[in-house]
Amino acid sequence: MEVMRELATTNGKKIVLFVLDGLGGLPREKGGQTELEAANTPNLDALAAESECGLHHPLGLGITPGSAPAHLALFGYNPFDYAIGRGVVAAMGIAFPMKAGDVAARLNFATRDEAGLITDRRAGRIPTEKCAELCGLLKGVDIPDIEVFVKPVKDHRAVAVFRGTDLSDDVADTDPQETGVKLLDPKATSAMGEKMVGVAASFIEQANRILADQKPANTILMRGFAELPYMPSMKEIFGLSAIALAVYPDYKGVSRLVGMDVIEGLHGFEDQGEALRDCWGRYDFFFVHHKYPDSRGEDGDFDAKVAEIEKGDAFVPDILALKPDVLIVTGDHSTPAVCAAHSGHSVPFLVNAEQSRPDDVAVFGERACANGLWGGVGIPGNHLMRLALSYAGKLKKFGA
Amino acid sequence: MEVMRELATTNGKKIVLFVLDGLGGLPREKGGQTELEAANTPNLDALAAESECGLHHPLGLGITPGSAPAHLALFGYNPFDYAIGRGVVAAMGIAFPMKAGDVAARLNFATRDEAGLITDRRAGRIPTEKCAELCGLLKGVDIPDIEVFVKPVKDHRAVAVFRGTDLSDDVADTDPQETGVKLLDPKATSAMGEKMVGVAASFIEQANRILADQKPANTILMRGFAELPYMPSMKEIFGLSAIALAVYPDYKGVSRLVGMDVIEGLHGFEDQGEALRDCWGRYDFFFVHHKYPDSRGEDGDFDAKVAEIEKGDAFVPDILALKPDVLIVTGDHSTPAVCAAHSGHSVPFLVNAEQSRPDDVAVFGERACANGLWGGVGIPGNHLMRLALSYAGKLKKFGA
Repeated sequence: MEVMRELATTNGKKIVLFVLDGLGGLPREKGGQTELEAANTPNLDALAAESECGLHHPLGLGITPGSAPAHLALFGYNPFDYAIGRGVVAAMGIAFPMKAGDVAARLNFATRDEAGLITDRRAGRIPTEKCAELCGLLKGVDIPDIEVFVKPVKDHRAVAVFRGTDLSDDVADTDPQETGVKLLDPKATSAMGEKMVGVAASFIEQANRILADQKPANTILMRGFAELPYMPSMKEIFGLSAIALAVYPDYKGVSRLVGMDVIEGLHGFEDQGEALRDCWGRYDFFFVHHKYPDSRGEDGDFDAKVAEIEKGDAFVPDILALKPDVLIVTGDHSTPAVCAAHSGHSVPFLVNAEQSRPDDVAVFGERACANGLWGGVGIPGNHLMRLALSYAGKLKKFGA
Repeated sequence: MEVMRELATTNGKKIVLFVLDGLGGLPREKGGQTELEAANTPNLDALAAESECGLHHPLGLGITPGSAPAHLALFGYNPFDYAIGRGVVAAMGIAFPMKAGDVAARLNFATRDEAGLITDRRAGRIPTEKCAELCGLLKGVDIPDIEVFVKPVKDHRAVAVFRGTDLSDDVADTDPQETGVKLLDPKATSAMGEKMVGVAASFIEQANRILADQKPANTILMRGFAELPYMPSMKEIFGLSAIALAVYPDYKGVSRLVGMDVIEGLHGFEDQGEALRDCWGRYDFFFVHHKYPDSRGEDGDFDAKVAEIEKGDAFVPDILALKPDVLIVTGDHSTPAVCAAHSGHSVPFLVNAEQSRPDDVAVFGERACANGLWGGVGIPGNHLMRLALSYAGKLKKFGA
């Protein structure tokens, strides 16, 4: 990163990163096609033919990435240097102005029965309006010397931010991840977390009292206690003035963490295209995010994922019309429908630029990209010497 | 490096590193051939068919390498561990015996008018003999407690080495990099540089007085103030007794920094072939350097670069006749003629050895190497950003 900071220079050139979330896939049956291979993607295929293609490992080989670190990687950061908890992602997603030392946690409104056993971890997915109303009620929580902010996110999801001295995010989730059991008490994961445990316990106790008569959302589950990590901005490191065009809060959240501006109120490609054209003159890095290939992959719905990839393909001409200097199309990770989950597979990508070195890839797909310029696995220049020494018999064996 | 030092062992096997400077390229037009692909290279093709082929990133993906760090990488060093300033490269290039604590700077003889404005930053590229004569005059410079050495390099280029206590290379260039303006005063880039700034100011003031009546070289520009970095030798790290067969001073300079012996007075392949045969029995690592593919690439002359690659090809039988145990042929970086500059593209290479594992590459070229044993790159996701920045021209060159 220090090298990047030293080498980065600014010019008028424009870079677009178009992320088809969960793009990478697997065939439905042995020998078949992946979702991307099965999709009819004339625009991406034509682009691939004029691009450098390959496969990338978002977090390193075999590691199944979460969305936040995978996007950090795509933004050029080493995701292992910056731990981003769910609470922070949620708070950033709704543009809550967290400060250093604040601790944020995800809040799920939930339902429990008279015995105190959880019956629905999502309180019947109450609408966002109801969620906002309940968050308003939780303003009644009073904890000495601590400021508490409770904000709605979407449906049953909210975020709580705690502000005070000596708070730490070393606190485990209170969500037991199953029904028919009681809420977990907040527990410290290190001695640092003790004060925050007391704060969380008081918060939960008061919230349960305030929500006692509500239906169906009469309790809360807390997950992902997290402090704001220190993150240098893309401007600082790469000299890039960057903007995010994303629909979902979490992706806006990660974008804000790296100092991107974020356009609010986008609902899909139509809005995203209009916003992209509108802000084109004012930025030099554009992150365009399409959520649904991942969503349908998570659903295990192969055909629906194919359809979402095709929608992404149809948006490519909108981007190309603006003549970006560099266009990257890729995913943040693989979400094969057959897995119905994120997976550790590599992710196809293409890089299109005036200086792209030609390869022989003519369609955009996993197999094709494996034969592209970046398809296999290459080596750093200073490792050539190792090959030489090894083949010349000049290196002893390491270990027994 | 510590691992290398621990594992390196010596035997009689011989390694040749044949560098075609600036080898990597790009097609002249979309879909066309690169310089290397267009070149008629029967020897390299036959060699590639019996070698492991691939692409390497001299300083890591997307970084445009300067020649000095790129060669360090080819010599097996991590170039980011050793900052080598231009002054040191210049001093090493003419075999000046720098000592720890010395500060070297590149000197360009230049022309300025009566108003003190620079009219020619190269003083009409005066011949080396004239340069030597002027360096002789500058022996008249007298700075208390400081030894000053001024030595000719080539044409208008010279090198100045300052020896004394508490000197530092934290001094900015005095070369304004344009004509029609005055010389820049030497300025410290940190508090450490203050003493050296005074020394440089005194040197420049006296030099201007001494050169006042000379034509056309009546002033000097100083660039690349640099101290000698500590570099372990190839002998220490790899156990290699190494020799450089290069024509250009800068490459001899980098070779000396890693402890290679250097053969002086070589003018081209004929000399290099003879010298190689002559010293074959006395070393186990041979660095053979061919400068001109890079020079013609920098000129933007595609066809001339092709011709220089073909000259390199014609030298391959000379190397093979000596039956090296390992032969590496590659470039230190890419210099595509369409860029007329170094670029961040990967560089084709072949490694030929008894133990080479066969791949299906049958010609030596970028596309072919991309399909070789070391061809593609399963790159970390966070390196995609480097490609984007590099192709968008947003990363400056690293090093001289």
